[in-house]
Amino acid sequence: MTGKHAEQPQRLHHLLTLAGLPQALLVALLERAAELRVAPGEPLRRHDLLSGKTVVNLFFEPSTRTRASFELAARRLGAEVLTLDMAFSSTVKGESPLDTFYTLQAMNTDLFVVRHREPGVLQTLAQHALPQVHVVSAGEGSVSHPTQGLLDVFTIRRHKQKFDGLAVAIVGDVRHSRVARSAVQALRTLGTRDIRYAGPAELLPEDLDGERFTNPDKAIAGADVVMMLRIQKERMQAGLIPDEHEYFRRYGLDAARLKLAKRDAIVMHPGPMNRGVEIAPEVADGPQSVIREQVTNGVAVRMAVLATLLQK
Amino acid sequence: MTGKHAEQPQRLHHLLTLAGLPQALLVALLERAAELRVAPGEPLRRHDLLSGKTVVNLFFEPSTRTRASFELAARRLGAEVLTLDMAFSSTVKGESPLDTFYTLQAMNTDLFVVRHREPGVLQTLAQHALPQVHVVSAGEGSVSHPTQGLLDVFTIRRHKQKFDGLAVAIVGDVRHSRVARSAVQALRTLGTRDIRYAGPAELLPEDLDGERFTNPDKAIAGADVVMMLRIQKERMQAGLIPDEHEYFRRYGLDAARLKLAKRDAIVMHPGPMNRGVEIAPEVADGPQSVIREQVTNGVAVRMAVLATLLQK
Amino acid sequence: MTGKHAEQPQRLHHLLTLAGLPQALLVALLERAAELRVAPGEPLRRHDLLSGKTVVNLFFEPSTRTRASFELAARRLGAEVLTLDMAFSSTVKGESPLDTFYTLQAMNTDLFVVRHREPGVLQTLAQHALPQVHVVSAGEGSVSHPTQGLLDVFTIRRHKQKFDGLAVAIVGDVRHSRVARSAVQALRTLGTRDIRYAGPAELLPEDLDGERFTNPDKAIAGADVVMMLRIQKERMQAGLIPDEHEYFRRYGLDAARLKLAKRDAIVMHPGPMNRGVEIAPEVADGPQSVIREQVTNGVAVRMAVLATLLQK
Repeated sequence: MTGKHAEQPQRLHHLLTLAGLPQALLVALLERAAELRVAPGEPLRRHDLLSGKTVVNLFFEPSTRTRASFELAARRLGAEVLTLDMAFSSTVKGESPLDTFYTLQAMNTDLFVVRHREPGVLQTLAQHALPQVHVVSAGEGSVSHPTQGLLDVFTIRRHKQKFDGLAVAIVGDVRHSRVARSAVQALRTLGTRDIRYAGPAELLPEDLDGERFTNPDKAIAGADVVMMLRIQKERMQAGLIPDEHEYFRRYGLDAARLKLAKRDAIVMHPGPMNRGVEIAPEVADGPQSVIREQVTNGVAVRMAVLATLLQK
Repeated sequence: MTGKHAEQPQRLHHLLTLAGLPQALLVALLERAAELRVAPGEPLRRHDLLSGKTVVNLFFEPSTRTRASFELAARRLGAEVLTLDMAFSSTVKGESPLDTFYTLQAMNTDLFVVRHREPGVLQTLAQHALPQVHVVSAGEGSVSHPTQGLLDVFTIRRHKQKFDGLAVAIVGDVRHSRVARSAVQALRTLGTRDIRYAGPAELLPEDLDGERFTNPDKAIAGADVVMMLRIQKERMQAGLIPDEHEYFRRYGLDAARLKLAKRDAIVMHPGPMNRGVEIAPEVADGPQSVIREQVTNGVAVRMAVLATLLQK
Repeated sequence: MTGKHAEQPQRLHHLLTLAGLPQALLVALLERAAELRVAPGEPLRRHDLLSGKTVVNLFFEPSTRTRASFELAARRLGAEVLTLDMAFSSTVKGESPLDTFYTLQAMNTDLFVVRHREPGVLQTLAQHALPQVHVVSAGEGSVSHPTQGLLDVFTIRRHKQKFDGLAVAIVGDVRHSRVARSAVQALRTLGTRDIRYAGPAELLPEDLDGERFTNPDKAIAGADVVMMLRIQKERMQAGLIPDEHEYFRRYGLDAARLKLAKRDAIVMHPGPMNRGVEIAPEVADGPQSVIREQVTNGVAVRMAVLATLLQK
């Protein structure tokens, strides 16, 4: 999974994971994103960096926000965007993702933004890409969501400047979260050592370094960053975790629980939120929340990724 | 609902309803639309008025014609358009419309075209819009469809010049029609006094001024404008109204019934039509029909709305 | 069906079928496509030939590859593209295809790319098109798929130069294949006489000239071109043809069977492929396969069609 970077230490060709991405490349992406970021209410600058390039949004899982974010990022750089919602259409004829990729690649396309439920499919596509074609993950099973990880550390950096010495609490279904995995990989690369995980015991991760808590208060205590994760209601229906009301009481972030964190702690959530389940509305919309800023930063980070991969 | 206009008498910021829209603003929109209108077969003029702006088509109900009309209107003014069909996708993750709106608004977007089944949702979005963000209704429950109302009066104006002294008959399911409500509001503002409603008793409106008839012949007699509404076949299945054949006999507009109107009366329909149910093919495609012209005018009117709201 | 061409021998207005298309027009399209073709890895040239034009992708049947190919072709010529997936949305309100067409035509649109399951619908639309509006088939029942036929002969021409003297084997469900029909029409026009069909007896065509074989070895023996067709798995479920395993054994193209063809024979498939059913992976991805090149050529051919129809 890290091979993509190891082979090309100086230059990024695909972006499938943040694991193993050299710190210099990661920081360069964040700095590029800072240049490209437009604050809400400010006029967009028109870029022609990707003029003549075709970006394919190839989503095998439904998505609204990530797809829209990539689509706007690509178009604001001057690229043509072709969006294919394969969650509905691919099943019709049952072609393999690789054959779909081969076909679209043969249409003189340049970069694929791909989301797929199954781990490994993106690596397969990248291995079969033409030399001039790039693959960017928009989410891969519970393994990886690298642009989300980038926007998370980009957002933290805007508020906390340095990563060394930060305490980050990640609360919720960490075990199944590609968001958490990518964020942790980026935080580690940037020097954050104190990462804590909290949630129901069966939703704590086995593969991530850091302290585990079933009591979220202990994870949140003294934290600089509190990252809440979306809980899948299907897990409640399956009886794996308590119902919404009880989940909120035990693990949800309300104002009282947030007081345990540092006074200037920021609150993050990758969205979409279950208000009143993992997070209280007054926290989601409160002064410490950077949740909407994450979205704004997401466009900037994706522009940085596309521009970096596609520019000569 | 009319507060949006009352607060800003000189300038339109959102367009959620035609109720309370000052006559001067309404006429200014119609005149702008007349400038922007391109007759069928004439070359489009390319505008850059909205260059650098992003328009989001956010449809929580399915739509083909209104969505396409707004999409073409925005692009022909030079805007980027992001179309999100939430009728299919939103249900997947169950986020509230307001959170979806917050998210898309954080992507440096400028104007939202929104359709929603539930009355009040659009007002909620507009209330939570950033100062630089505009909301335009593309249909709200049975309450309001302001750009349809605008295109209706724009079309009438092209054929009848003045509104004072016109007799307008609206036939069909007026009670549940957002199209009828917006058209009536615009007609009233422009000075039309004689508006008649016809249809099955249980489909006549309670909240609209004007004479009610269960016999459409009486409403159509001497009319300058005959506006036929689409009948929802589900109401037939529910037994609320007679079957298609009987509905056509009693309320449908055929050539004989149209003869009761003025000789130069025009026939309108918002589409999509049920041919042979509310309207006979020979009338829909006949010389008095302006139904296709309504569609052409719809693009012009939407361009006028977008240009008026988004231009400095 | 051929009337469209017969009426306008000098100039193409609609493209609904290749039947009856004069050789000169067919060759002109292929030459235009050759000029517009961009090899994989080469930079796109930006064209403004269709600047100010609106192309509507109106698909009443699901499609990924053909829709994407037309969309990219139109945009790379500078047109605006409106894509409407009616396979999902049209059923919602039950409007007839002709009324949907009338509506979209009234939006100052210039060219419709239409796919429909039912034979004759495209002719109906073309007959009701405004004088300045063009209709291009993207697939019509099992009758016609003219741009697929064009890309097939374009691909053959690149490898074989001349059509006279070629032996072409078409293997699979020829009876229900619009791809086969359009390819055969183009091949005949260009001078190919030796066309053979192979497949299960009940899937052999009744309306096409050429030799029929239930043993594919006999059709493939000495062929210059082997065109494999997609088999619909629904036909297997209906018990009309043997199961996948048995179908592959009897009719599938593997390396051994391909050896029966000429040494420099090319292998074609319109996609999407059922690997291991009608074609072996080693053949699909092998040195004689031009399957991906067909896709690249498809964009060029569609650009040629759009540019030819829409240019003054």
